[in-house]
Amino acid sequence: MAKARSKGEAAQQAGRDPPVVILVAPQLGENIGMTARAMLNFGLDEMRLVRPRDAWPNAAAEAAAAGAERIVDSARRFESTAEAVADLGYVLAATARVRGMTKRVITPRRAGRKLRECARASVRGGILFGPEASGLANDEVALADAIVQVPANPTFHSLNLAQAVLVVAYEWFAAGATGPEETVTLPRTRLANKAELLGLFEHLEHVLDASGFLGIEGKRPIMVRNLRNLFQRAGLSEQEVRTLRGVITTLVRWRAPEC
Amino acid sequence: MAKARSKGEAAQQAGRDPPVVILVAPQLGENIGMTARAMLNFGLDEMRLVRPRDAWPNAAAEAAAAGAERIVDSARRFESTAEAVADLGYVLAATARVRGMTKRVITPRRAGRKLRECARASVRGGILFGPEASGLANDEVALADAIVQVPANPTFHSLNLAQAVLVVAYEWFAAGATGPEETVTLPRTRLANKAELLGLFEHLEHVLDASGFLGIEGKRPIMVRNLRNLFQRAGLSEQEVRTLRGVITTLVRWRAPEC
Repeated sequence: MAKARSKGEAAQQAGRDPPVVILVAPQLGENIGMTARAMLNFGLDEMRLVRPRDAWPNAAAEAAAAGAERIVDSARRFESTAEAVADLGYVLAATARVRGMTKRVITPRRAGRKLRECARASVRGGILFGPEASGLANDEVALADAIVQVPANPTFHSLNLAQAVLVVAYEWFAAGATGPEETVTLPRTRLANKAELLGLFEHLEHVLDASGFLGIEGKRPIMVRNLRNLFQRAGLSEQEVRTLRGVITTLVRWRAPEC
Repeated sequence: MAKARSKGEAAQQAGRDPPVVILVAPQLGENIGMTARAMLNFGLDEMRLVRPRDAWPNAAAEAAAAGAERIVDSARRFESTAEAVADLGYVLAATARVRGMTKRVITPRRAGRKLRECARASVRGGILFGPEASGLANDEVALADAIVQVPANPTFHSLNLAQAVLVVAYEWFAAGATGPEETVTLPRTRLANKAELLGLFEHLEHVLDASGFLGIEGKRPIMVRNLRNLFQRAGLSEQEVRTLRGVITTLVRWRAPEC
């Protein structure tokens, strides 16, 4: 187990060189800034720009980056897509439409895993995104190893630039996540152990026997089982077991006013 | 196979009742509109609002919805979160911070699958999102079955409301996708069959034998194997095989000018 973990950690370390996001002919500075924020949320930090429409550096991009300015500030500008991808070994083209060419098309999920595999193999990856209105041209798609297409509602597919980047960046991040898909937060406490649960069950059953609740002929075993099962299912913390025992004790002592 | 498919289709049909998105005390109309767009991209179409800050209906929400107006127009307003979730059977609370309570925390990926499972079992699902600045209050989180937390860069976690909704909605949609993670587009053509590939290989090897390229002592078998492997790997279409044979024929006929 220890060995498997350290192997996993080494792989994660090697997989830390994230793919580059290449914006081809982006129009609005605001979208460049929002893209930078989307990237940084999911650990991507290198942006390249191919012929941005407006002058670069761009104040609107800077303003929209709000916290991710360093990505905007360090973004390199290129004259052509070919130059922008020259040093990369694996390039994806993000496009909603699939054009008249024979081309591999992958989901963002597979893209995230492929880009992680590249990073682990020290192959620098990149993802091309086209201009807001028109998307990538066929000649740019031809430079890519595959198309990455975000699956979406066939009758309403209108992700903006930063949203498309967000989904692909999210999948890159998720593909590197090593934690469980489900955890339980236990602030200042721990899950109750079985002895504590049994203590609760017996406390409850004792007062229910004494008060007559479990006295119905032949029903006691199934009622006990159902009650135990219900509390078992709640995944109680040790603190919650104590709270419930306090609830029982209080209710037993209290006599409801007759009304 | 036919039976499995029709069973899958039936399950998909039953799973079409998508979860409700509940915005608790949203502040900006623009964010409500952008959330509607994010939802519709991934097939969610019911929004509920708990005490929106500004008057409802809201012109800014309408404007930002740009194409998803019907979600905004049909959004119901509630006075309390408890009322907004009353008819739901499974509720998630989207929050970046995990509070001081014992609570199940799941990833968006698991959330997407859980919400699909609910839909298939005719249990109506919902996801609670808190106000832009402060997020959900603990009393609202306590109404949920689990917390859904978007995994993100620990040093820069600043998804806005519509982006958080986008990620969860994307996972709902992805959990229902039945297509392959990888396909190849083949417009007006098909993948070449092995006979066509062999035709190409033999054509190429014939001219390379004749021109002396494969004449190096003992090297022919490995060079032939490498060339065949390279073209095999490209996954050529029938059209591309014909193009390559045209390329070979043209090059053979042409004599480069000496210079």
